[in-house]
Amino acid sequence: MKITCPKSELTNALSIVAKAIASKPQTPILAGIFMRAENGILELHATNNEIGMVCRIPVDIEEPGQIAVSGRYFLDVIRKLPGDSLTITYNRTEKIINITSNQASFTLLSMNAAEFPTVKEIESNVEFTIKDNILRSLIKKTVFACSKDESRPVFTGCYLEVADNKVTMAATNMHRLAVKYEQFAEPLGNIKIIIPANILQELLHNMTSDIPTDVHVCCNFNQISFAFDNIYMTSRLIEGAYPDYNYVIPPNHDTLVTLDSAEFNAAVDRVSLISRAGDYNVIKMEFANGQLHITSNNPDIGNAEETIPASIEGPEVTIAFNAQYITDVMKIIDSKNCELRLTKPLSPMTVREEKDDAFIYVVTPVRTAH
Amino acid sequence: MKITCPKSELTNALSIVAKAIASKPQTPILAGIFMRAENGILELHATNNEIGMVCRIPVDIEEPGQIAVSGRYFLDVIRKLPGDSLTITYNRTEKIINITSNQASFTLLSMNAAEFPTVKEIESNVEFTIKDNILRSLIKKTVFACSKDESRPVFTGCYLEVADNKVTMAATNMHRLAVKYEQFAEPLGNIKIIIPANILQELLHNMTSDIPTDVHVCCNFNQISFAFDNIYMTSRLIEGAYPDYNYVIPPNHDTLVTLDSAEFNAAVDRVSLISRAGDYNVIKMEFANGQLHITSNNPDIGNAEETIPASIEGPEVTIAFNAQYITDVMKIIDSKNCELRLTKPLSPMTVREEKDDAFIYVVTPVRTAH
Repeated sequence: MKITCPKSELTNALSIVAKAIASKPQTPILAGIFMRAENGILELHATNNEIGMVCRIPVDIEEPGQIAVSGRYFLDVIRKLPGDSLTITYNRTEKIINITSNQASFTLLSMNAAEFPTVKEIESNVEFTIKDNILRSLIKKTVFACSKDESRPVFTGCYLEVADNKVTMAATNMHRLAVKYEQFAEPLGNIKIIIPANILQELLHNMTSDIPTDVHVCCNFNQISFAFDNIYMTSRLIEGAYPDYNYVIPPNHDTLVTLDSAEFNAAVDRVSLISRAGDYNVIKMEFANGQLHITSNNPDIGNAEETIPASIEGPEVTIAFNAQYITDVMKIIDSKNCELRLTKPLSPMTVREEKDDAFIYVVTPVRTAH
Repeated sequence: MKITCPKSELTNALSIVAKAIASKPQTPILAGIFMRAENGILELHATNNEIGMVCRIPVDIEEPGQIAVSGRYFLDVIRKLPGDSLTITYNRTEKIINITSNQASFTLLSMNAAEFPTVKEIESNVEFTIKDNILRSLIKKTVFACSKDESRPVFTGCYLEVADNKVTMAATNMHRLAVKYEQFAEPLGNIKIIIPANILQELLHNMTSDIPTDVHVCCNFNQISFAFDNIYMTSRLIEGAYPDYNYVIPPNHDTLVTLDSAEFNAAVDRVSLISRAGDYNVIKMEFANGQLHITSNNPDIGNAEETIPASIEGPEVTIAFNAQYITDVMKIIDSKNCELRLTKPLSPMTVREEKDDAFIYVVTPVRTAH
């Protein structure tokens, strides 16, 4: 193999696929990046057996072929090369890879490319195409609500339900729930799966196109893949039954509160400076007289209070929450105002964007001694 | 005490003094920040018994007085306040400190201000005034060469020698040495002390004035202080005898090499990508035929080589170094070209800036099997 390509494009492609390399690979070959050059395209593969990443870039090919090389040093070397263009040559006899750019020359030992478990296209039960901005919104508005606790694996992923024309994504850690859905003009099929949060975070990171792009999603009961631009990503799914979360969503409410989103977020963030030192980060919210009064108290530190204007329809109510569960959702609220729906001090509160039924967040209050 | 002041100025002042608070304070009061308001000035103090920081800012004083408060929460609260201006009120009866800004209100428990060991002005044997840019250069060009190994305390600091009209700063870790001096028109006195590297780093960080500023330095055999702008910093000195480093500086040389500083630095940085995985980060430098050929080799990874133009006067020479000791000094070289002086492959090399005798760096080579 012998290729020449711009340094910037190879650096970008390597940064993307290198995310699939585990910090402690299960087998030595999984520390590698596989590259295949043919028909004017260099295809890069990396995998940790859980997730797989493929990226394709156009290159000048003097001699087609395939190689594998330790990902760690390869990326460092490519990044630091002095020139704008670089040449990679595989020396089959000595099993070494030579990289040159301007006056710099590196030689890296190669790995056995034939041994590399390249990332394969998955067989799909359901496949559909979705605009990247819509997929980004489905993920961004739910994935933050996943649990980090590996002892309950199903909660470390986002639940994806495709039901005819409707795609719903949901996530919960048992204390709060985020649900976002999208309606499509055409039916897309039917499937219910749980996608690991980390691949969704990686997907958000990689969907950087400025113009709306199509993302082709394929899934079966074990795997999911996302194809867009020059990137192909696959991931294993989380096994297990996702609980029916609909019963958690309060069917009705007594009090409807409308708040300025940025003002509410900043106030909760400030008041929680005092509460976050405690075990449960508890802030108290008192909705009365056209105002929200937020307070926190820690006997070892002091207390904080802040009052912001609130439009309140219905009975006054005082309720307490883990402040983190409020600031988490406020980070992803896009609308200028947000709506809180409440019933009783010990019943869940819902948070919605203004005039948008396609997103709902439910958070369980904390019991406090008033 | 009751004061009103701009949030930005108090935040800046707190960020400076808070650096003196230990992460694990020896006594509870040392976790605090002391504040004294009088004559239109708020003076903030913090100390960990090794270093002390004082910062003064103008404030509106409604009631003078002094307070102490836990530094950790106080800085977080001030930083996050919503308004541009804030008011701090001490409630003597309840021993609490109230902080308000716009609609936000915080109450923090106070500490006993009378118990706080405020930072005192030190008694000086030698004192002198130096422009901040000159002091910055003395520190920047030497402090990086200090050792991090606490088992030999004298090498964790910079040696400062004031001898009549000459101020010299030096640092070494036994493998490399950096020396920088300045000549003054007037004699400044005579003293030899060892200043901890961390206070010098903090001083570099705090000397941010855009226009040349006077720094007043006072020292005795136990302490040093720096006063400039609205800041006063003190530090204990390192006890012990600093070795005579002059015998390390080669009195003459056989080969004089002139290199482009940026090109040399980048080439060493790249070639060391391969060597830095090894224990000694060894790169080989071959000066011959108007070129410097830099190579590194690691049997487990591969090898790297790079050739850059070099003006060489004197015999050809091949020598090996820890790459880190080269890149460290190249970061602080300001001149477009740098000069290397060499004798034999196992004798120290010196690095100088072009046409500047006031700085010298000496680095010991590594013995390698050629």
